[in-house]
Amino acid sequence: MTALTAPPAAVPTFDDVLAAHDRIRPYIHRTPVLTSETFDRMTGARLFFKCENFQKAGAFKARGASNAVFGLSDEQAARGVATHSSGNHGLSLSYAAGRRGIACTVVMPRTAPRAKKEAVMGYGGRVVECEPSTSSREAVFAEVVAETGADFVHPYNDPRVIAGQATCAKELLEDIGSLDAVIAPIGGGGMVSGTCLTLSTLSPRTAIYAAEPANADDACRSLKAGHIIADDAPQTVADGLKVPLKEYTWHFVSRYVTDILLATEQEIIDAMYLTWQRMKIVMEPSCAVPLATILKNPAVFAGKRVGVIITGGNVDLDRLPWMTP
Amino acid sequence: MTALTAPPAAVPTFDDVLAAHDRIRPYIHRTPVLTSETFDRMTGARLFFKCENFQKAGAFKARGASNAVFGLSDEQAARGVATHSSGNHGLSLSYAAGRRGIACTVVMPRTAPRAKKEAVMGYGGRVVECEPSTSSREAVFAEVVAETGADFVHPYNDPRVIAGQATCAKELLEDIGSLDAVIAPIGGGGMVSGTCLTLSTLSPRTAIYAAEPANADDACRSLKAGHIIADDAPQTVADGLKVPLKEYTWHFVSRYVTDILLATEQEIIDAMYLTWQRMKIVMEPSCAVPLATILKNPAVFAGKRVGVIITGGNVDLDRLPWMTP
Repeated sequence: MTALTAPPAAVPTFDDVLAAHDRIRPYIHRTPVLTSETFDRMTGARLFFKCENFQKAGAFKARGASNAVFGLSDEQAARGVATHSSGNHGLSLSYAAGRRGIACTVVMPRTAPRAKKEAVMGYGGRVVECEPSTSSREAVFAEVVAETGADFVHPYNDPRVIAGQATCAKELLEDIGSLDAVIAPIGGGGMVSGTCLTLSTLSPRTAIYAAEPANADDACRSLKAGHIIADDAPQTVADGLKVPLKEYTWHFVSRYVTDILLATEQEIIDAMYLTWQRMKIVMEPSCAVPLATILKNPAVFAGKRVGVIITGGNVDLDRLPWMTP
Repeated sequence: MTALTAPPAAVPTFDDVLAAHDRIRPYIHRTPVLTSETFDRMTGARLFFKCENFQKAGAFKARGASNAVFGLSDEQAARGVATHSSGNHGLSLSYAAGRRGIACTVVMPRTAPRAKKEAVMGYGGRVVECEPSTSSREAVFAEVVAETGADFVHPYNDPRVIAGQATCAKELLEDIGSLDAVIAPIGGGGMVSGTCLTLSTLSPRTAIYAAEPANADDACRSLKAGHIIADDAPQTVADGLKVPLKEYTWHFVSRYVTDILLATEQEIIDAMYLTWQRMKIVMEPSCAVPLATILKNPAVFAGKRVGVIITGGNVDLDRLPWMTP
């Protein structure tokens, strides 16, 4: 129906997921699955929240980063790893590198919050600042790699990262059993791709939904158009979800995602507040997008067993979105 | 050493705790125990956080309230239950009464936050307002009881309530095994008394500490003086801990508590912020007092296995103590 591009060179397989899970198990938490009678009553569904906000370094990204870091040969590892990310991936890569005892460089805009830079350094990573532009980031990052020979671990467009994120849905299925649907937030598509990889093997009957801010709906438009659409700097409170799909994640999203559902900024903030208030967990705005879309589309989920991925918990407690500035 | 008062009439025993646990099991969560490498590193101790913020109605109080409500004969139950509380006990009693399908009246000052009144009503309870004074509260409460014949379930000075709270430490021991110490916040002393009741039977070698705001240190001074000292309206951010000990809780606290440790308001707020930030859980200021005192008294806890009771998660997300007003 849609004209799919040819698959990229080294699409990860479920064997890669099994290897990833064995490899990263000592370095990640098997995070708990929480339920909420309140949310079940509000949605008519049976919801199972996989709480990656309790994950090492505060987000599911520790899975993919650990898989990349611990899959390196000793020779590669000696040159360290590097990435550009002002979010959870930089933190997670620094965490994983620290656990292996190797160097990690994270290129971040000089305008990124100091707390994020300090968190990377807290795990032993080195922060190299660039100007807040794509050209500066690419130039500075190229210098870092040329100077160190570090292995580039992309935040999501990397088969090792996708195989690592896929271990999350594997644990969810193992713990909860049969699921009619799984829903996760989508930005670059790393978590959704991992979810597709696991479910298409272990439970092909489970529908896979992605949830996206209406203000950053490039993945939704991509799925409809049949090719990747990348927006320039969308604005949303769900700051982990601003980045576009790339070829590896497009491979999975285009083949296995049933639908991408959208939520407005206010719906995201309301769902985030409600989750903090009722489930008593600290989570990022991005994680609230799935619940917001479930509340908005009851007919899609009512009567079903639905896995919901809570992707991370690294928020600035001094700048919560319901606080007046 | 200290002149203890005679024990009150019907001190609960560990048999009452066993009966309570069987009775309330269908109505409460067996809450998870979380650990934090960060906090272990900061304190030198091995900390096990029993997360009653995830409990039904958002606090451990659901245990005692459920034990009281489900222990009533059908005849008593037909007349309902009543209490005065603007906090978690009123909410929990309303929850338990709702589960049994009986009437519940909660007398609250008309000045209490509307959200708290709505929460009680959300579980099916009736709110009767009084003036914000002890005399008005007692007069209005007496009217309610005279009119309905409802059973009075005190927030903590009630053997049924203490036996219910004691199931929390029982679960903690069952899940974690040997503990060198347990620490819980102390206000009226219901949770601490239940902890004493369980540990003095199952693990008498485990030291029991209570943690109290320095601004509301009546329990600490009571323990030193050897008799109950009640303060008039102390001011603290840990608003669940303002009430004084009463005879049943004094019975346990005076006999089994090793020490009561104090924390300042700023230390409490800092420990609360730190817990939200690192453990990604929403909890009340009261729950932060134990961690604040552990951080402050490393010599007491270093090298030990310590259970820490996180008592509840019902906070006003629009008025967090680190927000500027």
